[in-house]
Amino acid sequence: MTCTAAELAQYLEAKIEGDPHVPLAGVASPERARAEDLIYVQSARHAALAVHSAARCAIAPRETRLAADKTIIQAANPKLAFAKAAAWLLQKSGPAPGIHASAVVSASAKVAPSASIGPCVVIEDEVEIGDATAIGAFCFLGRGAHVGEHCRLHPRVTLYAGVRLGHRVELHSGVVLGADGFGYVFGEGRHWKFPQIGGVEIGDDVEIGANTTIDRGSLDDTRIGPGVKIDNLVQVAHNVRIGQDSVIAAQTGISGSCTLGANVVAGGQVGIGDHCTIEDGAMLGGQAGILNGKTIRAGQIVWGTPARPLAKFKEQFALASRLPDFAARLRKLEQSRAED
Amino acid sequence: MTCTAAELAQYLEAKIEGDPHVPLAGVASPERARAEDLIYVQSARHAALAVHSAARCAIAPRETRLAADKTIIQAANPKLAFAKAAAWLLQKSGPAPGIHASAVVSASAKVAPSASIGPCVVIEDEVEIGDATAIGAFCFLGRGAHVGEHCRLHPRVTLYAGVRLGHRVELHSGVVLGADGFGYVFGEGRHWKFPQIGGVEIGDDVEIGANTTIDRGSLDDTRIGPGVKIDNLVQVAHNVRIGQDSVIAAQTGISGSCTLGANVVAGGQVGIGDHCTIEDGAMLGGQAGILNGKTIRAGQIVWGTPARPLAKFKEQFALASRLPDFAARLRKLEQSRAED
Amino acid sequence: MTCTAAELAQYLEAKIEGDPHVPLAGVASPERARAEDLIYVQSARHAALAVHSAARCAIAPRETRLAADKTIIQAANPKLAFAKAAAWLLQKSGPAPGIHASAVVSASAKVAPSASIGPCVVIEDEVEIGDATAIGAFCFLGRGAHVGEHCRLHPRVTLYAGVRLGHRVELHSGVVLGADGFGYVFGEGRHWKFPQIGGVEIGDDVEIGANTTIDRGSLDDTRIGPGVKIDNLVQVAHNVRIGQDSVIAAQTGISGSCTLGANVVAGGQVGIGDHCTIEDGAMLGGQAGILNGKTIRAGQIVWGTPARPLAKFKEQFALASRLPDFAARLRKLEQSRAED
Repeated sequence: MTCTAAELAQYLEAKIEGDPHVPLAGVASPERARAEDLIYVQSARHAALAVHSAARCAIAPRETRLAADKTIIQAANPKLAFAKAAAWLLQKSGPAPGIHASAVVSASAKVAPSASIGPCVVIEDEVEIGDATAIGAFCFLGRGAHVGEHCRLHPRVTLYAGVRLGHRVELHSGVVLGADGFGYVFGEGRHWKFPQIGGVEIGDDVEIGANTTIDRGSLDDTRIGPGVKIDNLVQVAHNVRIGQDSVIAAQTGISGSCTLGANVVAGGQVGIGDHCTIEDGAMLGGQAGILNGKTIRAGQIVWGTPARPLAKFKEQFALASRLPDFAARLRKLEQSRAED
Repeated sequence: MTCTAAELAQYLEAKIEGDPHVPLAGVASPERARAEDLIYVQSARHAALAVHSAARCAIAPRETRLAADKTIIQAANPKLAFAKAAAWLLQKSGPAPGIHASAVVSASAKVAPSASIGPCVVIEDEVEIGDATAIGAFCFLGRGAHVGEHCRLHPRVTLYAGVRLGHRVELHSGVVLGADGFGYVFGEGRHWKFPQIGGVEIGDDVEIGANTTIDRGSLDDTRIGPGVKIDNLVQVAHNVRIGQDSVIAAQTGISGSCTLGANVVAGGQVGIGDHCTIEDGAMLGGQAGILNGKTIRAGQIVWGTPARPLAKFKEQFALASRLPDFAARLRKLEQSRAED
Repeated sequence: MTCTAAELAQYLEAKIEGDPHVPLAGVASPERARAEDLIYVQSARHAALAVHSAARCAIAPRETRLAADKTIIQAANPKLAFAKAAAWLLQKSGPAPGIHASAVVSASAKVAPSASIGPCVVIEDEVEIGDATAIGAFCFLGRGAHVGEHCRLHPRVTLYAGVRLGHRVELHSGVVLGADGFGYVFGEGRHWKFPQIGGVEIGDDVEIGANTTIDRGSLDDTRIGPGVKIDNLVQVAHNVRIGQDSVIAAQTGISGSCTLGANVVAGGQVGIGDHCTIEDGAMLGGQAGILNGKTIRAGQIVWGTPARPLAKFKEQFALASRLPDFAARLRKLEQSRAED
C-alpha cells in the first residue's frame, strides 16, 4: 500500500517533523532505499548513512538531525516503530482465494471459501481450514488436521493427522508437525515403539522456521503457546510445552516432556534434556546444555554444558585460562618447599 | 481393533485380576483415558492418577492396588507390556492398496499390488516396492530404488537413485536418503567433488525421524543395521555403518566412514568426527564430541568435548567448579611463603 | 562415457605405465572394482588392496609398484587426479530437456528450451531458468526466482520469491533458500516481525546439502560466494556473507549478519554468533562456538566454546585433566605448611 508520512505517523501515534506529504510505499536500508522507502535511524552509523540515502522519510529518535529535506517520524524505539510501520506498509492481500486444479482435496474437508489452496496440495479427510488462510504448494494436511484463520503455510509443509493450528500461524517450508515422538521400550531383544498418539497444538501468532520438526505427544499433547517464535532446524520432542512469546533460535533441540515457561529465550544449538523445566524469562546461551530433569529458575541466564549461571561460567572460564599460571606457581611453591 | 482384557492378557501371557470381560479399544494416559482405553502404572504417581482415571483396565506390577472396580493385567515391566499391548491394539490396516491417479509411476517400476501409492508420488524407472508397503504423498523414489515389504514412507520422503530399504522400515516426513556425501579434493584453485556413487542400505525394522539425512557412500555403501532407531534432524555421512538396534537421538551428526556397533546409544546433538569407531553398547552423552579417528570402547559411557569417560568428566567438572577456591588457597600459600 | 587409459592420462596430463589400451568406463574402490573401473592408490593400505583388485588401471604415485598386469597413471596427488578423472568419466547428459506434463509453470516464466523440468514442479510468475538446468520433482520456484545455466536442483527444493542462483549450482533434496530471517522486535507486549525482504544470492559452482536452510536478508541480501560447499542440515541466517570456496560441514549454524571470508573451513556443528567476522582461511573446529561480534583472524585455527586458538585449547584441556593432581598437591603443601 501507499500512504503519506503523516498518515504513517498517525498510525504510529508519533510526532512528525518536515514535509508530511512525502509518499511512502515500502521500507529499506538507507543504502538501498529509493525515494518512497521508509528507513530508520537507531545509531550514529545509521544516521550517517541516512543523510546520504535517497529515502525522504526516516523514523528516528527525537533529537536526530538529518538533512533539511528529510522528513522525520519521531520514535523512542525507532526499530520497533519501523517494524510496526513495515507490517503496515507491506501488508499483502495474499494469494487469490480458491483451490488450485492440481490440489487433491478430500470431499469431507472443510475449506473456507476465502482460503487459498496452492498447486499440488494434498488435504485428507475431515481437515478444516479457516478464513483467509493460504496453503502453499506441496503442503500435506493429514486426516483431521485443523488450521485456523489468516494462517500462512509456505510450500512443502507437512501436518500429520490431527495437528491443530491457531490463527495467524506462519509455517515455513519444510516444517514437519506431528511426526511420531522418539520413544521405545527395549525388551525381548528388540525396541518396542511406545505409543505416539498424542496431538500437536500450535497457538495463535506462532511462527516456525524452515525444516523445523515438532513431534506429536506420546499419550498427551505437544503444545506451543501463543506468540512463540521458533527458528529453522529446531527439534521439539513429544509432550513438550512452550509458554507464550518464548523465542527459540536455530538448531536448538528440546527433549521429551520439557516445560518452557513464557518469554524464555533459547540461543542457537541449545540442547535441553528430557523432563526439564525452564521457568519464565530464563535465557539459555548458545550451545548451552541442560541436563535431564533440571530446572532453570525464572529470569536466570545460563551457559555452558552442563549449564550454569552466566557469571559462574565466566569466572570458571577465566580461571581455566589461568591454569598454566597456576601450574607454574604450584611447581614453584613445591620447589621452594623442597629447598627448605 | 477391540478385545477384552482377558484376550489382551492372553496375548501378553500375563495374569489378570478383576473383571476379564472389560472391553479394550485403545490406549491413553490415565488423565485422558475413556472407559475402553488401557492405561499403565509404572510409578506411585501413575497409581494415584490411575485410581481416578475413567479407564477400567490397567497394566501394573503385581503388588499394585487400585480401586476395586479396575481390572489389572500384571506385568513385571508395565511400560514394556503397555508398548506391546499398544502395538497390538492400535494395529491399522494402512491405506487402501492401489496407485493414486495423480502419481507419476514409471512403466518399468515394479509395484506390489498390495502396496499403496499416495497422491503426487513420483516413482522412477526400475524402482521396486514390496507387499503392503505404503508410500505417502510427495515421496520421490529415484531410479532403481528398492523398498521392501510392510514399509511406511510418510509424505515427502526422498530416496535418491539406488537406495535400498529392508522390510518394515518407517521413514518420517522430510527424510532424505542417498544425497551425495560431502567430499571434495582441493587442487588447481578449486574444489573437485570426490565421486559419491556408493549406495545406501537400510535394514529391516529401522525407523528414521523427520528431516533426517543419510548420505550415500562415496565408493562403498552407507549401511544402517536392522532395528536401528534414528530421531529427527540427524545427519549420517557417507560410508557410515551403524550396527543392529543402535539408537541415535535428535540432531546428532555422524561424520564420514564412522563405524558404530550394535546397541550404541547416542544422546542428542552428539558430534562424531570422521573415521571413528564406537563399539557395541557404548553410550555417548548429549552434545558429546568424539574427535576424528577415535575409538570408544564397548560399553563405555562418555561425555564432553573432547569426549572422555563419564566419571572423569564429572570429576573434572567438579574440580573446575572449585577453581576459585584453588586460586585463593594458592595465593594464601604464596603470601604465607613470602612472609617467611 | 568410455575411454582408454591413454586417453584419460592425456586428459590428466599424466604419465602412463603399462598397457595404454585398457578400457575405462567408471570408478570404484579396489574391493568393488570391475575390470573397466578406475581405482586410485594413495596409501600403503590402498596399494595392498589394489594388487588384488579386478581393476586393470590405477592412478598412483610414481614410485608405486603393483602387479605387472596393472596399468598405472602416475599422479603426485592421486586422490585429486582420481576426482578429476571421475568427473570426466561419469559426466552425464542429465535428464532429457522439456517440461513434464504434471508441472505447473506460469505463463510469464522463462524456461530455456534445453532445461529439464521434472514432474510436479511449481514455477511461479517471472521465474527464469537457464540452459541445461535440471529441476527435480516437487521443486518450488517462487515468483521472480532466477536459476542460471547447468544447475541441478534435486527433488524437493524450495526457492522463495526472488532467490538468485548462479551457474552450475547443485542443490540437494530438502534445501530451503530464502525463508524469512529470524528477526523480531519486542514491544507493546508482543513480538513484531522485523521486515525480512532482502534477497538470497548464490554464486557459481556452489553445492548445498540436503535439508540445509539459507534465509533471505532482512533489508539487504544473504550472499554465498562462488565455489562454496555447504553440507547437510546447515543453517545460514539473514544477511550472512560467505566468501569464495569456503567449506561448511554439517549442522553448522551461522547467525545473522556474519561475514565469512574466502577459504574458511567450518567443522560440523559449529555455532557462530551474530555479527561475527571469520577472516580468510580460518578454520573452526567441530562444535566450536564463536561468541557474538567476535573476529577470527585470517588463517587462525580455533576450537571450543568460547572458541580459542587450538594450541591454547589443547593446553587448557591437558591442564584440566591434571586438576585432580593439582588439588592433591595443593592440599599436601597446605598440610606441610600447617605442620611448620
